[in-house]
Formats: sequence, structure tokens, C-alpha cells
Amino acid sequence: MSSRETIPVLEIFGPTIQGEGLVIGRKTMFVRTAGCDYSCHWCDSAFTWDGSAKNEIRHMHAEEILDELGKIGGSGWSHVTLSGGNPALLSSLALLIDNLHERGFSIALETQGSRWQEWLMEIDDLTLSPKPPSSGMKTDWIVLDKIIARRKEGDRNEGLSLKVVVMDEIDLTYAVQVHQRYPDVPFIIQAGNDDPTSTDPDKLAVKLLKQYACLVDRVMRSEELRNVRVLPQLHALLWGNRRGV
Amino acid sequence: MSSRETIPVLEIFGPTIQGEGLVIGRKTMFVRTAGCDYSCHWCDSAFTWDGSAKNEIRHMHAEEILDELGKIGGSGWSHVTLSGGNPALLSSLALLIDNLHERGFSIALETQGSRWQEWLMEIDDLTLSPKPPSSGMKTDWIVLDKIIARRKEGDRNEGLSLKVVVMDEIDLTYAVQVHQRYPDVPFIIQAGNDDPTSTDPDKLAVKLLKQYACLVDRVMRSEELRNVRVLPQLHALLWGNRRGV
Ligand code: SF4
Ligand code: SF4
Repeated sequence: MSSRETIPVLEIFGPTIQGEGLVIGRKTMFVRTAGCDYSCHWCDSAFTWDGSAKNEIRHMHAEEILDELGKIGGSGWSHVTLSGGNPALLSSLALLIDNLHERGFSIALETQGSRWQEWLMEIDDLTLSPKPPSSGMKTDWIVLDKIIARRKEGDRNEGLSLKVVVMDEIDLTYAVQVHQRYPDVPFIIQAGNDDPTSTDPDKLAVKLLKQYACLVDRVMRSEELRNVRVLPQLHALLWGNRRGV
Repeated sequence: MSSRETIPVLEIFGPTIQGEGLVIGRKTMFVRTAGCDYSCHWCDSAFTWDGSAKNEIRHMHAEEILDELGKIGGSGWSHVTLSGGNPALLSSLALLIDNLHERGFSIALETQGSRWQEWLMEIDDLTLSPKPPSSGMKTDWIVLDKIIARRKEGDRNEGLSLKVVVMDEIDLTYAVQVHQRYPDVPFIIQAGNDDPTSTDPDKLAVKLLKQYACLVDRVMRSEELRNVRVLPQLHALLWGNRRGV
């Protein structure tokens, strides 16, 4: 097999809980792929693209990943989260997705929605997370429109959600814009972690909860944001900025 | 109208977030009814049934509740949570549920599943929360079976979930039993709050997070609990034991 058919993997871990989004709290295994087409100012997974972990990248075949999931996770799980970086850069994920489904596992995937892949139609819990102004990135509305339209056409509306991280008032204006563009898609506003290097989990948790409380308060006062959810990142509250949990 | 058609209301507040369950984080208004057929040891809403707030109970008609929701909540919400106590004691909720739906609002309701009401078929987000051994209560499996069977027959499987609060290892065994009895119903294990009177929110949050971390760890090691979610109570993390938020 050519290396085009392998998947650049940085982490395989679990079972743990999904800390974010529509399936928050779900028992899941994680496969974290390397590489991102963005470089968000506050990226909490910068090691996937900034070169700092490039020696840890393993180019793995789908079967190898399946083996390792079994070895690490035992048999007490039924759900796998594909995370990044931006896993939607990788056409080679198609085979892994098929293999996981054949074994009866369901699959979550998060992407900023900047790249199309046919296999996006197969994801059970697809979170599109376009990045707000504070990230320093620009949203590709054409690709985002396409993904959402294709899921709708293919009757895969269920399991689709939009999630916007909000750090400040400008980000909140952006969140309103996203929600109004796609009013039928379940919409999640996520409290950001502006301190992705803090090493004291208790202090970080108290700080993140205060920021989350402010965001909740702000969204509760909005007339435009009605049919929405406001969520924290549970893994950051539980384990701070540790990797691999 | 006779008083049988009124609803005993203890609190109307919001918008705030739903702190628990399948629609965790959802922007919602709350209507808390008085009265419960249980008396759980660790009840965090004991004022709804222990007599301590009996002078605050208002016997309200559906239209009065709708008026007050509008006055308190403005227009920036589209979801109402009916909470208790056990709201399933009240046949008089039928009219309120109809009126809310007519206005386009969706409705969440939580009950321990000890009483049947026809209007349980109308609830959009129905959480059945049978109580574990640590509560001191006994589960009425016959009624619980009936509610779940009726929702399935009526094609209202969607929006149904089971939630079990877990305080200790015996409760976890009970959770496994519930999950195995209804394997197709989305299943949530919720970290309990064994300190419903603490008044220091930061300290309580750190303590609740540690208990939640232990529960997550325990469920992650279980082979039986695969297709499950483990969630905290967000409102307790945010606001401690305060009422009306
Ligand atoms: S899109 Fe995600 S992984 Fe990529 S830089 Fe932004 S936050 Fe990091
Ligand atoms: S069923 Fe709910 S409201 Fe009733 S006593 Fe138990 S915890 Fe409290």
C-alpha cells in the first residue's frame, strides 16, 4: 500500500468521555490525526500541526488502528471519535470509517468545515466547528454550505451539529451569524479555554467555570440565540490541559 | 374552573440552561411544580415536597403560567422544562403542554417514572430518572416498563432518555441493571451531589468535579456500560446549590 492510504496518527486513547458538543459525556475512544489547514491563535491541539510532536506521528493503516483500539480500550466501548487537527484533510479515513461501522461502532468527528470529503456523509455524530474571529481564521462559507446541504440532501441531518467557540463579544456576533445562516442545524456555543497551557487543574476549572457562567449569562440575555445550547469543555474541567485523557 | 385544573407551582424562572441530561446546556425556561411521591435521601429539591416552601405554592392556570413565562423570560427562548418534585403527579399539566406546543415551544420534563399520564406521550425531551438504592426509594418497574413501551409504540422513542444518579458502587450496579433492561434507550449516568446544602460554590465545584472524575473513571472501566454518557450537573458546578438559576 502507498503511504497515501495510511493515516497520520498522533494519539489513540480511551475509553474516556467526549468532553464537548452534542454527544457530550459519551463514552468513546479517541483517534487524533496530525495536520491542520488552520492555525487558530488559541488552538488547544497545536501539537497536531505546529511541528512540536512531529516525531510522534505514526503513519498507520486502518487495520492497525483497529488493533490498537482493541488493545488499549478492551471491549467496553462502542463509539470512536476522530479528532485532530482537521481529520477532514485525510481522504484515507474512508477505509477506517467503513471498518469501524462494519464492527458496529458509531463514529463522531469534528472539523472546522473547511474541506469536503465524501466520507463526511458516513459520520454518525458530525460536529462542524467554524472558527470565530478571535481564532484569527477566516470561514470558508462555500465549503460549509456544501457540507450542510449535502448532509440534508442525503437525509443525514440527524447527528449533524454546529459548534462555535466564543471567547468575546465579537465571537458571539459571529455565532449569531452562523446560527442565522443555518437555523435548522442544532447549535452549540462553547466556552473557550483562553489558557491552554495552565498546569493547575483546580484553578483552571474555577476560572473556566466563571468564564462559562459569563457566557451563559450573555446568551441568556440574547433575543437572537433562542434554540441553542451553551456548553463547557468537560475534559478541561476534569483534567485541565493534559493530553491523552 | 375547579382547583383540580390548576397546577401547584413553586418556581418559574429563566431563561437559563438545562443543567442535566440529554439536552444539557439547552437554553430553557423552568416551571417547577410542587409535590413528590418520593422522598429521596439526597433530594436537591426537597422544598418541593417537605413542607418548607408550602406558603410559596401558587395554584395557577395554564394561561397564567404562560403569561408569567413571557413576563419573566421575554422572547429570547423556545424551550420550557417542567420540573419538580414529580410533575407526573399532575394530570392538570395536559393543558399547559398543549398551550406551549401551540405557541411553538418544545418541552422537556423529568420524572422518576413512578406515575403514568397520557400527556407523557407529548413531551419532546422526556427524561426518566429512576432512583438508585442510595435514595432509599424503590423502583416501580411496572410503571417504568409501561412508559417506555408506550413511547416506543407511539413512535416517540426519539427524545426519550434514561438517567440514573450514581452516588456509590451499589448505585452503579443498579445503573447497569436499568441499562440492561432498556438497552435501546439513550442512557445517562449522572454524578450525584451529596452536599445539597453547601454554600461555597467554588469549593463545591472542585469537590463535585473530583467526584465526577471518579465516576467517569469507574464507568470507563466497566465492560457492561458501553453505549452510555456520564454527565455532571452543570447548574451545580456553575451556581452551587442556589435556587432559581
Ligand atoms: S482548526 Fe482546530 S486543530 Fe486546527 S488550528 Fe484551529 S483549533 Fe487547532
Ligand atoms: S424523585 Fe426527585 S423530587 Fe422526588 S424526592 Fe426524589 S429527587 Fe426529590
